[in-house]
Amino acid sequence: MIKTSPGGGCIRAYIPFKANGAKSRLSKILNRKERQMLASLMLEDVLISLRSSRLDAITLLSTASDGITEIVKSHGIKCRIDDRDLNTAINSILKEDTDPVMIVMSDLPLLKSSEIDRILEFEEDIVIAPGLGGGTNILLVRSPKSFHVDYHGNSLQDHLNIAKESGLSVRIYHSFLAAVDIDEATDLVELLIHSDGRASSYIRNLGFYLVENDGRVTVKREVENA
Amino acid sequence: MIKTSPGGGCIRAYIPFKANGAKSRLSKILNRKERQMLASLMLEDVLISLRSSRLDAITLLSTASDGITEIVKSHGIKCRIDDRDLNTAINSILKEDTDPVMIVMSDLPLLKSSEIDRILEFEEDIVIAPGLGGGTNILLVRSPKSFHVDYHGNSLQDHLNIAKESGLSVRIYHSFLAAVDIDEATDLVELLIHSDGRASSYIRNLGFYLVENDGRVTVKREVENA
Repeated sequence: MIKTSPGGGCIRAYIPFKANGAKSRLSKILNRKERQMLASLMLEDVLISLRSSRLDAITLLSTASDGITEIVKSHGIKCRIDDRDLNTAINSILKEDTDPVMIVMSDLPLLKSSEIDRILEFEEDIVIAPGLGGGTNILLVRSPKSFHVDYHGNSLQDHLNIAKESGLSVRIYHSFLAAVDIDEATDLVELLIHSDGRASSYIRNLGFYLVENDGRVTVKREVENA
Repeated sequence: MIKTSPGGGCIRAYIPFKANGAKSRLSKILNRKERQMLASLMLEDVLISLRSSRLDAITLLSTASDGITEIVKSHGIKCRIDDRDLNTAINSILKEDTDPVMIVMSDLPLLKSSEIDRILEFEEDIVIAPGLGGGTNILLVRSPKSFHVDYHGNSLQDHLNIAKESGLSVRIYHSFLAAVDIDEATDLVELLIHSDGRASSYIRNLGFYLVENDGRVTVKREVENA
């Protein structure tokens, strides 16, 4: 196994995944089945990038085993089921682990392996790739036992505060491709413009396309919720 | 003068600036005078970054001379007044110039000099740092006479097409800090989170602050349009 951490130790990425009821903010333009499919395909896009990065190991952290068996099998990754809320599940992992841990959100279909490798190169105790709107889309924790997460709202600021309280050094890595998470209809604009992965192809095949309206780009669907 | 272009030639950045009536989409939360001040301060943030980059020269391309005299003087840059629409003004420059030209939008207060230097390192004929929503926030044109611009809506795609038709190589540089342009109220979230420059300080001093609402971060103002 290649040691990718400057401080040594195998680096494992955990990808939290909501197995049911994901992406409810897209319910105006996608039905439940479509939202579930989009979530799975975004997860696969993320997995493909992570697998071609210099990470040592990947674990899918899912709220349930529904619908993930094929993904886990085909990508040859580990799976951990934890139906508790995100913070409890992640903090439980951080308490157990001694090797560096990376937490990568599953709704980052623009992500490329080069972004992951860049994050691994930094030497700070904590590396954060923020999401738009103050989220923490990727988090690298070199010493898991000395940190805990608080994912909600402006979690970037919360994580900076937690690191400061614990005397940990922090690097904020501003990455466009890691910043775009797909939560709302307007986010599909970035998906269609900047990705040709599985999630983007699926959205295209559902009939979504880009339109310009008063100089702004939005998405439309050929046949609305047909 | 330091030659920063792999192909040689002095590289000049042009910053288009709307001297009057800028940022109308912010009219719900900022009055005309505040919008004008924000636009000027964002321009100054951009100028500060550009001046500490490896660029050779900077020209402010303004629609009028109103209110820019001090900025031009204090930053020691050139100024060109052109009251025609953006595309006509830029294409007129591209027809004249033989040395490489960079076009940098004036509403990118998160921009850092390192992003400009990174763009200058690429060897492609055209380098584009896209904005969110398909815009072209930074454009480097190595051979100005062989390219023309079409800024409106999904201009990233339009510029890719124009480059293709002209047989020019293109690099898309995905930069978070160059992608965030400040057009709408929600964009102020990124300004407050990721910048401590002049524009961000101004917005803070106007009483704007970050609030979390159902897990999402938005901005509020202490005293609305007081």
